[in-house]
Amino acid sequence: MIDLSLTNRAGHPLYLQIYENIVSQIKDGRLMPGCRLPGKRSMAEQLAVAVNTVDTAYQMLLAEGYLESRPRSGFFVLPYTDTLLAAPGEKPERRVPDQHNHIRFDLSTGSVDTALFPFRTWGRIQKELLYNGEELLSHGHRSGDEDLRAAIGEYLRVYRGVECCTEQIIVGAGMEYLLGLVAQLFQGSTAAIENPGYIRSRTILHNCGVNCRYVDIDESGLSVDGLAQSGADLCYVTPSHHYPTGVTMPVGRRAQLLRWAAEQDGRYILEDDYDAEFRFDMRPLPSLQGMGGGNGPVIYLCTFSKSLAPGIRIACMVLPNSLLHRWQEMFGGYANTVSRFEQQTLHRFISDGHFTRHLARMRKIYRARMEALSSALEESFGKERISLQGRHTGLHLLLTLHDASGESEMVRLAQQHGIRLRGLSEYYLDRRIDCPKNTVIIGYASLADHDIPELTMALQNAWASFSGNAS
Amino acid sequence: MIDLSLTNRAGHPLYLQIYENIVSQIKDGRLMPGCRLPGKRSMAEQLAVAVNTVDTAYQMLLAEGYLESRPRSGFFVLPYTDTLLAAPGEKPERRVPDQHNHIRFDLSTGSVDTALFPFRTWGRIQKELLYNGEELLSHGHRSGDEDLRAAIGEYLRVYRGVECCTEQIIVGAGMEYLLGLVAQLFQGSTAAIENPGYIRSRTILHNCGVNCRYVDIDESGLSVDGLAQSGADLCYVTPSHHYPTGVTMPVGRRAQLLRWAAEQDGRYILEDDYDAEFRFDMRPLPSLQGMGGGNGPVIYLCTFSKSLAPGIRIACMVLPNSLLHRWQEMFGGYANTVSRFEQQTLHRFISDGHFTRHLARMRKIYRARMEALSSALEESFGKERISLQGRHTGLHLLLTLHDASGESEMVRLAQQHGIRLRGLSEYYLDRRIDCPKNTVIIGYASLADHDIPELTMALQNAWASFSGNAS
Repeated sequence: MIDLSLTNRAGHPLYLQIYENIVSQIKDGRLMPGCRLPGKRSMAEQLAVAVNTVDTAYQMLLAEGYLESRPRSGFFVLPYTDTLLAAPGEKPERRVPDQHNHIRFDLSTGSVDTALFPFRTWGRIQKELLYNGEELLSHGHRSGDEDLRAAIGEYLRVYRGVECCTEQIIVGAGMEYLLGLVAQLFQGSTAAIENPGYIRSRTILHNCGVNCRYVDIDESGLSVDGLAQSGADLCYVTPSHHYPTGVTMPVGRRAQLLRWAAEQDGRYILEDDYDAEFRFDMRPLPSLQGMGGGNGPVIYLCTFSKSLAPGIRIACMVLPNSLLHRWQEMFGGYANTVSRFEQQTLHRFISDGHFTRHLARMRKIYRARMEALSSALEESFGKERISLQGRHTGLHLLLTLHDASGESEMVRLAQQHGIRLRGLSEYYLDRRIDCPKNTVIIGYASLADHDIPELTMALQNAWASFSGNAS
Repeated sequence: MIDLSLTNRAGHPLYLQIYENIVSQIKDGRLMPGCRLPGKRSMAEQLAVAVNTVDTAYQMLLAEGYLESRPRSGFFVLPYTDTLLAAPGEKPERRVPDQHNHIRFDLSTGSVDTALFPFRTWGRIQKELLYNGEELLSHGHRSGDEDLRAAIGEYLRVYRGVECCTEQIIVGAGMEYLLGLVAQLFQGSTAAIENPGYIRSRTILHNCGVNCRYVDIDESGLSVDGLAQSGADLCYVTPSHHYPTGVTMPVGRRAQLLRWAAEQDGRYILEDDYDAEFRFDMRPLPSLQGMGGGNGPVIYLCTFSKSLAPGIRIACMVLPNSLLHRWQEMFGGYANTVSRFEQQTLHRFISDGHFTRHLARMRKIYRARMEALSSALEESFGKERISLQGRHTGLHLLLTLHDASGESEMVRLAQQHGIRLRGLSEYYLDRRIDCPKNTVIIGYASLADHDIPELTMALQNAWASFSGNAS
């Protein structure tokens, strides 16, 4: 409700009062730029005046540049200073020039190719559920529907070597949500985080009152010596496919990590298995969780937002038995966060075999895309000028351009040529100085196959000025 | 993956090895009761043996009562002690006798009558979105789809007197999720909570590291004097309809509460408007948020799980402008937790006018139900024996039976007669001793109208022994 008081003074028409009231609120900042005004109809209802009266006032405000009308969205307050600067009657400028318009290729990570998602199958299951789904309107199990958790458990056991009972599985609206709850179990504790690493996980842990220490990774992933020195009791790792370098933690290092956890009561490992479904060269290594055993120290996290689609928010977690009691105590009363319809759609999608078929198909397509991109890049730049890393798993790779004059220059020039990508140093949470030079991340998940030649050419052009810089 | 090692010893058939392995794991507790075994097919794949081999082993385990088979779910480990007690060949007993079977009337709060939900309309919109919804597979806006937030904002402005811009609105997978994030903004601070009050909110604040102080309510709701003494900088209130007593905070007390917040920088009020849609006697009081103004100190929370259906997990929050920056800093990177499909379904449900029509219909039906129930109770027990409180809003009321010999006895006897309800003292987070005597909560939202006579009779019978206890 916007605060407007109208009087019945003769000679002071209502539309003018509305107009003046809004103008004064814009001028003194009570109505902020970007603020949406009530629709004409609801404003009229609120003030008990005719819709036409409000319409007249709004038209004046539009004409004078106090408001703008956005199609199908409504009326929005424009920045007041802009209004002052605009010549009378002239349409005030938009605030922020939209840089996004110039981006032809978005190589940032975190998206997937949603065109590959078997939308028809998913939609068909959902429609079937809608025909007979009244029971899905009620509360489900707090940890997630039992049949969904059983199906996920079966999948995780067979494909990810996770050792668990249905009771240990918790379904939630995204990895970040589940990580946020886990973090609350460890409030006041110290967590070790990979450096470089996934900054979002650090943010979540930090927001929940967990102290974060950065531990460097080497060619086998997180250094367990560094971990031991960090004083952490919780260790967040991405052993299947380190984010962002792509390193897979070998068995020896995994055993070392599990030994670290076993050395002291209350030590836990948070395994973020965010994209292990997409390992190209061999069957993925079983999870660290399975290696540690169902009663072991590993909290296992995985997401369906990458393997299905980001718009579908479902992730799951496998808790060690030793944490179940504490979990129940703290979060046992929380309602589940995933809509029952989507839970049941996913349940049928998995148990009817669509999920594993979809993954097999995705793996094939992404692998071909990765290989086509790698070959195109190597051919175009020459194998001496670039190195590519992290090709066996996941949906991104690292590109190093040896003769470039710095990573930020690479990013800046790419941006100028319509390519969005990020430099490796952005992922260094600590000791950025140790970051390998001239290295950027290429997320290829949402890249169309037929765009590869044009992208390669664009990168060539962007980085042409480096050519011949070094040997 | 279950840990099984098979050997190739002659004379030691594989099915027997599997059987023995599982038995020993059940006996030593590595396989816990309730644990689900891998399906036959996946177990066979994992062990590289024929499906028949696994089948034989499973049949033996079933026959001997180590496992039970649940239709369409799989094989589950039975409690080992039960197995010992069962005579050979006898089917072991189920573990927990299911008390729920005996409950005829569930009067606990938190549910709604899902039969009232316009499921066809909701389903039709969702089906339409599924025909053309590929774009909904991608990430949406982190705070929620902009058109959904605009529609919610419009609704809140008109019907709840909330003063806000779309920018201030955040959509999330349930009230508890949003409250959990707000709580992180106030980590280490002290929050005042109504006593009696909603224990789940206390749990969430507490879990996120907020110190909780209990402030008693009086006939106008939370005592602001008590609040001032508590040392809190955050105040959680349910002013529209205090949970569970049903008190509506009058304007004078609201002004006092806003003054408390204004007295010192950094003080905020968390307004939980959890069921204000269901006010029966008049247009609901505008929200405290609106009274405080868009730039005021109120964080406004409401949920669609009560007004739509609990299986649909959507809630929303309106942040004061003064918190937007900090919110952005802490949570700006978090992905939204509500599926895009459900966001867009709700958007169309609201903007096509279904939502307000649905609410009007619900209000009418719930009001009639409340009145029918109140009359039936008063008639059956007599107006002198009982008092009913909290009849003007919400989906529950308080019943006091003057001649009862204690609240817990009332609850116990009701339970014996197939009625689940809770005593008022359970909502006392502090000073339980001050709880009004002989008072229970009657949640009538999921009660069928035609069940009212039978329920009244059942309560009569349950509490017959009190009759004549007191004057």
